[in-house]
Amino acid sequence: MEDKVQIQDAIKVQGEVVRKLKSEKASKEQIDEEVAKLLELKARLGGDDGKHQFVLKTAKGTRDYNPKQMAIREKVFNTIISCFKRHGAETIDTPVFELKETLTGKYGEDSKLIYDLKDQGGELLSLRYDLTVPFARYLAMNKITNIKRYHIAKVYRRDNPAMTRGRYREFYQCDFDIAGQYDAMIPDAECLKIVYEILHELDLGDFRIKVNDRRILDGMFAVCGVPDDKFRTICSTVDKLDKMSWEDVKKEMVNEKGLSEQAADQIGEYVSMQGGMDLAEHLLQDQKMSQSKQACAGLSDIKLLFSYLQLFQVTDKVVFDLSLARGLDYYTGVIYEAVLTQAGVASVTTEAQNGAPGSTEESVSVGSVAGGGRYDGLVGMFDPKGRKVPCVGVSIGIERIFSIMEQKAEVSAEKVRTTEVQVMVASAQKNLLEERLKLTAELWNAGIKAEVMYKKNPKLLSQLQHCEESGIPLVAILGEQELKDGVVKLRVVATREEVSHTVDIHTAPHLRTI
Amino acid sequence: MEDKVQIQDAIKVQGEVVRKLKSEKASKEQIDEEVAKLLELKARLGGDDGKHQFVLKTAKGTRDYNPKQMAIREKVFNTIISCFKRHGAETIDTPVFELKETLTGKYGEDSKLIYDLKDQGGELLSLRYDLTVPFARYLAMNKITNIKRYHIAKVYRRDNPAMTRGRYREFYQCDFDIAGQYDAMIPDAECLKIVYEILHELDLGDFRIKVNDRRILDGMFAVCGVPDDKFRTICSTVDKLDKMSWEDVKKEMVNEKGLSEQAADQIGEYVSMQGGMDLAEHLLQDQKMSQSKQACAGLSDIKLLFSYLQLFQVTDKVVFDLSLARGLDYYTGVIYEAVLTQAGVASVTTEAQNGAPGSTEESVSVGSVAGGGRYDGLVGMFDPKGRKVPCVGVSIGIERIFSIMEQKAEVSAEKVRTTEVQVMVASAQKNLLEERLKLTAELWNAGIKAEVMYKKNPKLLSQLQHCEESGIPLVAILGEQELKDGVVKLRVVATREEVSHTVDIHTAPHLRTI
Repeated sequence: MEDKVQIQDAIKVQGEVVRKLKSEKASKEQIDEEVAKLLELKARLGGDDGKHQFVLKTAKGTRDYNPKQMAIREKVFNTIISCFKRHGAETIDTPVFELKETLTGKYGEDSKLIYDLKDQGGELLSLRYDLTVPFARYLAMNKITNIKRYHIAKVYRRDNPAMTRGRYREFYQCDFDIAGQYDAMIPDAECLKIVYEILHELDLGDFRIKVNDRRILDGMFAVCGVPDDKFRTICSTVDKLDKMSWEDVKKEMVNEKGLSEQAADQIGEYVSMQGGMDLAEHLLQDQKMSQSKQACAGLSDIKLLFSYLQLFQVTDKVVFDLSLARGLDYYTGVIYEAVLTQAGVASVTTEAQNGAPGSTEESVSVGSVAGGGRYDGLVGMFDPKGRKVPCVGVSIGIERIFSIMEQKAEVSAEKVRTTEVQVMVASAQKNLLEERLKLTAELWNAGIKAEVMYKKNPKLLSQLQHCEESGIPLVAILGEQELKDGVVKLRVVATREEVSHTVDIHTAPHLRTI
Repeated sequence: MEDKVQIQDAIKVQGEVVRKLKSEKASKEQIDEEVAKLLELKARLGGDDGKHQFVLKTAKGTRDYNPKQMAIREKVFNTIISCFKRHGAETIDTPVFELKETLTGKYGEDSKLIYDLKDQGGELLSLRYDLTVPFARYLAMNKITNIKRYHIAKVYRRDNPAMTRGRYREFYQCDFDIAGQYDAMIPDAECLKIVYEILHELDLGDFRIKVNDRRILDGMFAVCGVPDDKFRTICSTVDKLDKMSWEDVKKEMVNEKGLSEQAADQIGEYVSMQGGMDLAEHLLQDQKMSQSKQACAGLSDIKLLFSYLQLFQVTDKVVFDLSLARGLDYYTGVIYEAVLTQAGVASVTTEAQNGAPGSTEESVSVGSVAGGGRYDGLVGMFDPKGRKVPCVGVSIGIERIFSIMEQKAEVSAEKVRTTEVQVMVASAQKNLLEERLKLTAELWNAGIKAEVMYKKNPKLLSQLQHCEESGIPLVAILGEQELKDGVVKLRVVATREEVSHTVDIHTAPHLRTI
């Protein structure tokens, strides 16, 4: 049992936080988060004295999507799916939960973030943590050795949510992967082309795609004198370079992870390097780096990759960056990550993109919006005989994109429509419900998106108001006179222009082509 | 610990089952289900002697969707969503899990089928059981009193799966609901119109929509002498009339539920009644029935409903059927259920639909494909002050529809395409990878769906084979001569017809309008 007084104190403090945020006009999300905490505290108190206080909220770290958010979501999905389809991808779907053991041993330290289901008898289940492991399980289970597929679905992580920054416990992943034994770097280049196309079409402002290779990282660690058993942990420290300064990263390597100062400094030299094909060329001649076979294999592939990226006309945004070190265990080759390089979304006007990789150093990264890489070993972990299926893929960070699009929509003057209704069937006089219903049905039957008010005698004004609120462009107005004449009055809501049309919808091509 | 010998015996028996099914050429799904059982048994044995046997399967009662199934799913969703949009619906989304207490007390006996999440610290969570309760929670939480929305998402029930009949533990629901205080029966009629349109457009064969009213059922029980506290349990017995004979239903009422023989017989008389507006009229005059105020209210509304259904031109498929008694606790008014009335899907040719409700008695019901009703009290259960928001809605039984569409696709000669690729960029000669990649990128940039083989020197035959397998209609063939002439050869895969085009895609309108 918790101490009642302690909770009451906490409620007071939390109440203050909420009041303060409100007075400061903090963002709605921030306030909602703090209100949720307050409600949770109150519920705990309520449970204590036997009187049940019902908590009306969604689970921590999750959210509903309202119609406006859904309209934006649909638009973003359409852009992304069109791109995936343009590149010839099929789609699959897998269940939201997997056998617990399917996920075991795939995510390293992050496994603690997996949601388990309660043991209610039967199999032990967990919610999927990403779409890549279920994809590998699907390939192995169905003995598929060749597929280009996309999969858009929600995944689950018991992480500390930061909903104001688009970080949730339930969130969408948007994955495109190519599985199969092909010639080097061709599918990898297509994945980068896809990232480029999507970010370009979504028009989120300037971006940069960083590329590296797991083999280059491992080779670099080896030639810098990092002991084999420390590769992973040093790698995850390097991964923090986008949030921490080199000094702090070095401190962590030396003080926490026990790396020699000298090794750390050599790593420091390499990870500050950025460039294109030239840099790969240069490092292949590098006295140290060229000692590692692995690194050389990675560097040659980077060169080949850049040659394909040139053919795909995307090199203006791609940087070979030795500091890129994505965390996931399963990557075996090329890795990449796309970041937006503009400080804020409001200032999306800067269109100057000079293309030289070096020139972006001053712009502030607002975070990763896509990432991926090659994972040639994962499918083999599922195959009973360990048969490998080489894979490369990319995941679009859709939640952050939603956040940005929502902010843009709020700033913009343009209203987001949440329905697609073309015409409202209205009447100015009373007792015309039957006629309205009949005409509406005729419109529906003709494939026209139409609405009618669910009232016997609605006021014309309220019918017109509904049109304006939800952006319905046309209103068909019925009246005694029109019925006698066998016509409907069709009014353009915005201009109040009116025309009369014969009632038979099949002879009214104007309406059918709205 | 389980007895090893017992499991080994069970494995033998199960192995026999699988062999038998295979020799009988049973359906793939049936065999898969039995193989899964076999694998589970083997896994249990494996765990026993310490050697871990990895089980490569999806969780019980769930399935993956392969690209072909996804193509069908997309088609079905498009039809349904178009209909919902035609009727002016917005869409929302809610999280896959809710606070456990949100679901508590909403599903009666079925609550035991709810999936709980493991208590990993923090809130107690459950997977959603339907989309209606989360919708009501959403309305109450956001104080929404007016909305017309659809929601398509997966729900979860720890039921006994019967996957061969399209019954899963994870399955889609496709809900359309109208919330708000409106004039009687207008939104209700639109819900039925929507069911009619969707089933008509999906072309699944003849169907019937049964309509009844919770108040008519309750009134009927009252006038037949059913004690108040037995309404629900007698109602759930009546609900079995579509699967059991009246004799068996009566037996259950009298022997198991302790109803008097006389009361049961009177119920028997009523529940055999089917008709249209006339029947409602007739029952309003019925000596017994007219004694119940509730029943009269329900009957008047049925009359009104039918008058609107006439305006909507859907009465040919709608039957007022007193035996319809949907199980869910939360219904308060009109209820309905759509059933396909044809024995098999193979015989979808019978187009004779004479429309008289009585004439369908001989056709065999292949099960419910949509259902819904009015639930005016559910939102009030969530509102702190109990404020009610009247709601009516319908849920399309999409999984059964998928099953039928899949069967149809299997029978049909037409191949289901899983990609939308318009053109394959190929070469007949070696060393043209760069040219192929370049042209493919130009096509992508022009918005054309294009594919290229990820090989340096693929054989022309294998490139053409890929086109035939995946239904790509055009192939652009590059060769030395064409490159010299600045053209590409464009071949229609089906007819082998060939034309030459200039390489600049922007001057090749033919390609852009494929």
